[in-house]
Amino acid sequence: MADPRFFQAAGPFTLGELARVAEATLAEGTDPERRFRDVAPLDAAGPDDVSFLDNRRYVENFSRSRAGACVVEPAFADVAPAGMALLLSGKPYRSYALLAQTFYPRPRPNGTRHPSATIDRTAVIGEGTQIDAGAVVGPAVAIGRDCHLGANVVVANGVVIGDGTRIGANAFLSHCEIGRDCELHAGVCIGNRGFGFAMDPEGYIDVPQLGRVIVEDGVEIGANSTIDRGAGPDTVVGAGSKIDNLVQIGHNVRLGRGCVLVAQSGIAGSTKLEDFVAIAAQAGVAGHLNVGKGAQVGAKAGVMRDVPAGQSVLGAPAMPVREFFRLVSLWQRQLKSKGKKDG
Amino acid sequence: MADPRFFQAAGPFTLGELARVAEATLAEGTDPERRFRDVAPLDAAGPDDVSFLDNRRYVENFSRSRAGACVVEPAFADVAPAGMALLLSGKPYRSYALLAQTFYPRPRPNGTRHPSATIDRTAVIGEGTQIDAGAVVGPAVAIGRDCHLGANVVVANGVVIGDGTRIGANAFLSHCEIGRDCELHAGVCIGNRGFGFAMDPEGYIDVPQLGRVIVEDGVEIGANSTIDRGAGPDTVVGAGSKIDNLVQIGHNVRLGRGCVLVAQSGIAGSTKLEDFVAIAAQAGVAGHLNVGKGAQVGAKAGVMRDVPAGQSVLGAPAMPVREFFRLVSLWQRQLKSKGKKDG
Amino acid sequence: MADPRFFQAAGPFTLGELARVAEATLAEGTDPERRFRDVAPLDAAGPDDVSFLDNRRYVENFSRSRAGACVVEPAFADVAPAGMALLLSGKPYRSYALLAQTFYPRPRPNGTRHPSATIDRTAVIGEGTQIDAGAVVGPAVAIGRDCHLGANVVVANGVVIGDGTRIGANAFLSHCEIGRDCELHAGVCIGNRGFGFAMDPEGYIDVPQLGRVIVEDGVEIGANSTIDRGAGPDTVVGAGSKIDNLVQIGHNVRLGRGCVLVAQSGIAGSTKLEDFVAIAAQAGVAGHLNVGKGAQVGAKAGVMRDVPAGQSVLGAPAMPVREFFRLVSLWQRQLKSKGKKDG
Repeated sequence: MADPRFFQAAGPFTLGELARVAEATLAEGTDPERRFRDVAPLDAAGPDDVSFLDNRRYVENFSRSRAGACVVEPAFADVAPAGMALLLSGKPYRSYALLAQTFYPRPRPNGTRHPSATIDRTAVIGEGTQIDAGAVVGPAVAIGRDCHLGANVVVANGVVIGDGTRIGANAFLSHCEIGRDCELHAGVCIGNRGFGFAMDPEGYIDVPQLGRVIVEDGVEIGANSTIDRGAGPDTVVGAGSKIDNLVQIGHNVRLGRGCVLVAQSGIAGSTKLEDFVAIAAQAGVAGHLNVGKGAQVGAKAGVMRDVPAGQSVLGAPAMPVREFFRLVSLWQRQLKSKGKKDG
Repeated sequence: MADPRFFQAAGPFTLGELARVAEATLAEGTDPERRFRDVAPLDAAGPDDVSFLDNRRYVENFSRSRAGACVVEPAFADVAPAGMALLLSGKPYRSYALLAQTFYPRPRPNGTRHPSATIDRTAVIGEGTQIDAGAVVGPAVAIGRDCHLGANVVVANGVVIGDGTRIGANAFLSHCEIGRDCELHAGVCIGNRGFGFAMDPEGYIDVPQLGRVIVEDGVEIGANSTIDRGAGPDTVVGAGSKIDNLVQIGHNVRLGRGCVLVAQSGIAGSTKLEDFVAIAAQAGVAGHLNVGKGAQVGAKAGVMRDVPAGQSVLGAPAMPVREFFRLVSLWQRQLKSKGKKDG
Repeated sequence: MADPRFFQAAGPFTLGELARVAEATLAEGTDPERRFRDVAPLDAAGPDDVSFLDNRRYVENFSRSRAGACVVEPAFADVAPAGMALLLSGKPYRSYALLAQTFYPRPRPNGTRHPSATIDRTAVIGEGTQIDAGAVVGPAVAIGRDCHLGANVVVANGVVIGDGTRIGANAFLSHCEIGRDCELHAGVCIGNRGFGFAMDPEGYIDVPQLGRVIVEDGVEIGANSTIDRGAGPDTVVGAGSKIDNLVQIGHNVRLGRGCVLVAQSGIAGSTKLEDFVAIAAQAGVAGHLNVGKGAQVGAKAGVMRDVPAGQSVLGAPAMPVREFFRLVSLWQRQLKSKGKKDG
């Protein structure tokens, strides 16, 4: 069970309710009125818990599980332990996510503004929005309904934040528009000036960065990540994109819809990622490149050229994944044969 | 045009004024009294805008541009569209930067101290300095004139900040002296204890870090970057250096003048970078090394040895750039020939 | 001498006191009542300072040093300059660390709570704990004795912090238990939701992250590092671990005791590091792996498989260090022989 100091379970819920939420069907003969109190992993779940099987590696655990109910693909129904209620789903992890959200709904903002927050009188703030202690909201800021600004968040003048968006403690927003239902975690910095200057032996001259950051709806941005504003064009993060912790996005970068950027990855200035591009941890993409729709950049890869749509690349400089693994096995053979010669 | 919620254009300015600022000459027969209202890229500029051509790739855009005026090298004057006023410059990007700074001057600090800021009574703060909401300034701090401390900035005891320096929201400064006209962005952490301890099976023993961080004049430090104080000697960032976001600088590191460290790069303890060294994104330099004047470390490079002055290196372990690219093409040939043998 | 604006030396101390603290023996005939005022490096130390020799590279400096006393291995006693008092130790760096801690003890928390801090009335805070300006402490938080919360720290509801722990400015803690005598530096973010979601063409569905972060006793965490809470299991940082700046630790990761993670390294979700694992700067370990006791992952390495106990790995993909260096020298030979053929 989740630690009740940090999480409050809703429920109980009936199997019928849960099946509806999970977009699953109940196996024949299952009692839809049976009630459940919590979610739990296969090996920890008891008779009042719902669990899930998403990976065939864990079929054993499934067969031995004491979970009262389980989300599972129909193909595994046969090996379920006796008495376990089955929620059949073609996408069990997705179904589990929906169930778990039902048991642990995100706390709603409470609509209060802490007296120690500093809110400029020209800021417009929607109903239901909660602003925590020490937050600072500048002039002409527009914040939607049911938002949550964590403690000590700083929102600079003119920033726009859409309905239902949550900003973590100590985050900083300037020169940006944030969409609806976004979640920006603690320490995020958005809208600082891009790293633009004219290099010159007499000293570097800053080039004013006159663009903004546009974060579309439903984006998540991880703790301490940084997104610089554009130099003239905007920096754009497409709807539904998921950005992990400590990620850097340079000026003028454009992410399409549903991009995923894992921890400590970075995208250099003016590069464009089309929809559903995935960038794994500690990977980097050089500036002024195009990464095609659905392309995947592996962990630690260093992308120095355009990546075609759908391609998976790895290595530094990045190459198609298969090529990279052929190269690695070539190295291993060379080492072995060298070992023989030396021996 | 830049979004007026975030940027306020000064001007209009006459061509004569602009030429002076940009250190450019007006092409013969140009009316120096003609007035301009804004800067804009070649393809978006209109008759009241000044644009620039810095890269011969964009000559086409230049020839078709509707910009009223343009900064350009004399060599391209011939292909300018009719009616475009030309500001001739040997360094058009530098000239553009100067122009753009004229249209969009940095907002001046307003000299106010927000009542919610906590300022120790022993702190000395110069005239014209602005301190925003929630900032905390400790005992014996000395801040110069015309500085700006953003909201929720924390300046610990004894820190010195020179005239005209700007500190972004939520930054943290301790055990340091910051020069004049620096810009530290949001979330920067300066002066934490270096990562120094005696390793021992019985437990690690912290080695007190008794040095400081010295940031010289005109330095820029990007969002969420971290610079640790020295163990005994100081950590030093040379005048005019440009540091991007999420960069790590270890204890006792010494950067010379005009060094450039791009996003997510890191310099390990006690390493010295001489003047004008450039470290590209996600590169790292190991500890106790020397990187010579003007050396360039490519993106993702891992430097394990001293780098001579002027050398460009790439790869991990880092090697001269040419060698790295020869190695990459060797790999490609080996893969191809292996492909043939296998086929 | 350390800058007195930032550091206050205790002392003076007698050689006898210092020998006891340093777990060293005084060379025969040394006066235990001789008094010392400070620590200093070999080349800067004077007659009132204690220095140390830890690396035989610096034997010359030792022989010429004007330090009044020096911690040194017995083997080097012969080459000490005349008149230098010797503190003989088998572990001179450790002895020096202990000495330096004696001269520069960590400032004790002063037990005050700044009036601008926001402390929920249900929070329980131990005696002697200092809470600085702008800090925010949520409901049901439990903080031990003699802790220090820096300015603008945010501690969310239910968090537990053990005795003697210090939290740097602007840090954020939620969903976590922090042990005794830990030091978390400025800007640290602990307990944000892990990067967990069900991927789906119809949109990503967040998987509620129902675990916590458990930081055991005596852990140090560097500036702007991030540790996500578990998805169901907890994320755990073992006792005495040392984490540098800008490090990322994903959900469900388990670090054993005494692990060392150097700057900008990252550990992906559900990976386990056994006791005393060292991860060098900018290295990464993929998810769901096991890194055995005492294993060492070199700088910039990319670990894609389990690492056996005691093994040192390097490269991306990571391989045993010796293999990596053989590979590098193989490349160098291939380049040279290719150069000859081309020439």
